[in-house]
Amino acid sequence: MTRLRVPVQLRWSDMDAYGHVNNVELLRLLEEARIEAFWAHPAPADPLGEGAAPATADRETWPTAVLDAGPGARTATLVARQEVEYLRPLGYRRTPVVVDMWIGHLGGASIDVCYEVHDASPDEAAAGAPGPYARAVTTLVLVDAASGAPRRIGETERAAWLPYVEEPPTFRRRGR
Amino acid sequence: MTRLRVPVQLRWSDMDAYGHVNNVELLRLLEEARIEAFWAHPAPADPLGEGAAPATADRETWPTAVLDAGPGARTATLVARQEVEYLRPLGYRRTPVVVDMWIGHLGGASIDVCYEVHDASPDEAAAGAPGPYARAVTTLVLVDAASGAPRRIGETERAAWLPYVEEPPTFRRRGR
Amino acid sequence: MTRLRVPVQLRWSDMDAYGHVNNVELLRLLEEARIEAFWAHPAPADPLGEGAAPATADRETWPTAVLDAGPGARTATLVARQEVEYLRPLGYRRTPVVVDMWIGHLGGASIDVCYEVHDASPDEAAAGAPGPYARAVTTLVLVDAASGAPRRIGETERAAWLPYVEEPPTFRRRGR
Amino acid sequence: MTRLRVPVQLRWSDMDAYGHVNNVELLRLLEEARIEAFWAHPAPADPLGEGAAPATADRETWPTAVLDAGPGARTATLVARQEVEYLRPLGYRRTPVVVDMWIGHLGGASIDVCYEVHDASPDEAAAGAPGPYARAVTTLVLVDAASGAPRRIGETERAAWLPYVEEPPTFRRRGR
Repeated sequence: MTRLRVPVQLRWSDMDAYGHVNNVELLRLLEEARIEAFWAHPAPADPLGEGAAPATADRETWPTAVLDAGPGARTATLVARQEVEYLRPLGYRRTPVVVDMWIGHLGGASIDVCYEVHDASPDEAAAGAPGPYARAVTTLVLVDAASGAPRRIGETERAAWLPYVEEPPTFRRRGR
Repeated sequence: MTRLRVPVQLRWSDMDAYGHVNNVELLRLLEEARIEAFWAHPAPADPLGEGAAPATADRETWPTAVLDAGPGARTATLVARQEVEYLRPLGYRRTPVVVDMWIGHLGGASIDVCYEVHDASPDEAAAGAPGPYARAVTTLVLVDAASGAPRRIGETERAAWLPYVEEPPTFRRRGR
Repeated sequence: MTRLRVPVQLRWSDMDAYGHVNNVELLRLLEEARIEAFWAHPAPADPLGEGAAPATADRETWPTAVLDAGPGARTATLVARQEVEYLRPLGYRRTPVVVDMWIGHLGGASIDVCYEVHDASPDEAAAGAPGPYARAVTTLVLVDAASGAPRRIGETERAAWLPYVEEPPTFRRRGR
Repeated sequence: MTRLRVPVQLRWSDMDAYGHVNNVELLRLLEEARIEAFWAHPAPADPLGEGAAPATADRETWPTAVLDAGPGARTATLVARQEVEYLRPLGYRRTPVVVDMWIGHLGGASIDVCYEVHDASPDEAAAGAPGPYARAVTTLVLVDAASGAPRRIGETERAAWLPYVEEPPTFRRRGR
């Protein structure tokens, strides 16, 4: 079981008036984790280029981060579908949550990115921990930025992503 | 077919760097529509009470807005699950989008709120319009705010919501 | 005293964990009011054009809304400076707040947009009401989108904005 | 010159449709840095307590982080005033920006928190770097959460903060 484990820092403003991370903001955390794990570094959207904001030693680069995406790049990634299940309330904390990710489906022009939001490592989770805060799946479609048409996943992308393909999560509730 | 049609004003900041309403922000628009249609007026969260911000003639009150929810109220509404399908990009505009809502499932302690995001009225949509921007379902669980336990939907709530029960939307894509 | 009075709808998510509109989100409300009052309709950022989202009769167009701004337009508006004073907490409500705006300074290539955030009309405010929630000033610089250099305010813009020039607000506190 | 240097991670969604960090979102980054530097750890708002989300070795705790603030705490911190000057556009990047902070005024019941947003350390800034992205000041008032009245800064707080008192920043532009 090979997963991408991306720590994501909460912001105090992720809380809503109930005092927990808002259900919509949780998807924002997943967006951050997904960009970190799948978009090439430096992000093509960065108008400052490599020189101004060099990768530093403390920023891990994921082997899956091969997608030349972002504004200005040749590929746009469209979110076609999302499904999320909220399992227990997530409170504010200073330490990052860990977003575990894998690929539930590797299609011709799309992938299903799967997520579990944890306190820390799954090892800790195994030791009687209460399980993930949330499970989710995002279907991403790769689109040629110029033509707007879906484009096939390339060989480099497929090779980078294949080791992370695994069964998608089982949702407790399902649309009837 | 009885639906709740709630106009929701976009904000310029709903756009992301791609220049369209961000996929996460779209769920924010659905949250606004849902609160408008299902939470009692005035919102119990409003610390100013009825006097300070009276309902005005131009704010329609929905017959379904019977939920005594929000911080401080006896009922909390937890979002247990969301599923959303993005059908075409939503650009920024000054005029509100219209969120059509209905109830896909009326359970013992939970409801499935269903949504379609349109330009305007479904009549216009019928006249060769390109269909909704998005379809979604949110599962809401009613919880007793004091005990934290799910509580049954009351008779008043059930009576108010029953006319809006209808088949949930059919999603084109579905988790494999 | 000629002011622009723009109603701005709150969102439930504007509240933070304290249960009031967050101080940063308040500036978001001012941004919305400023775009409504100063950017030409339809917004050049709107990728759908006039046909898709026509102005409707219930959307007032301000005489000051002459700025051909937004992504893709010939002019970019840069926010060079902001100052805001929070006078009393703003709670969530269903009815819009009213943002009163005027121009505190009409320079060669920049304007100071001034704001007061009210419950409703200043007439009501006069009748023993507790005064504005906040006062603020934003310095906007007009920039040629192609060259990136500041560009002079044109005659049409100056003529449209001159009736709204007035003294800027007096702040109670000031940087020492 | 003793300053608090807090790295703050950007989010992709901090960008607006212009492709830069939005001027309102920049204040969100300052809020994050301020909470990190001035609020006691663990944050009283954290419903999970110390056990669930322990401070880890890689999270520095600032000597100034003595404020028992946040929802549920005895002290509330109200933002009474903010002033911000945007000096150059901030693009998206993976590496954090560094928010330099100090105290421009240490009053009886309030402090002025001053900020400069940098790429990295001021040493790098000294080596011909283009200077900060922004300068800002926030006036915070300490309020007794129960009574709502301003409360005096305590001896522990004053002792912790005194080493960081310095002249406030000089703004290039100033309200006329």
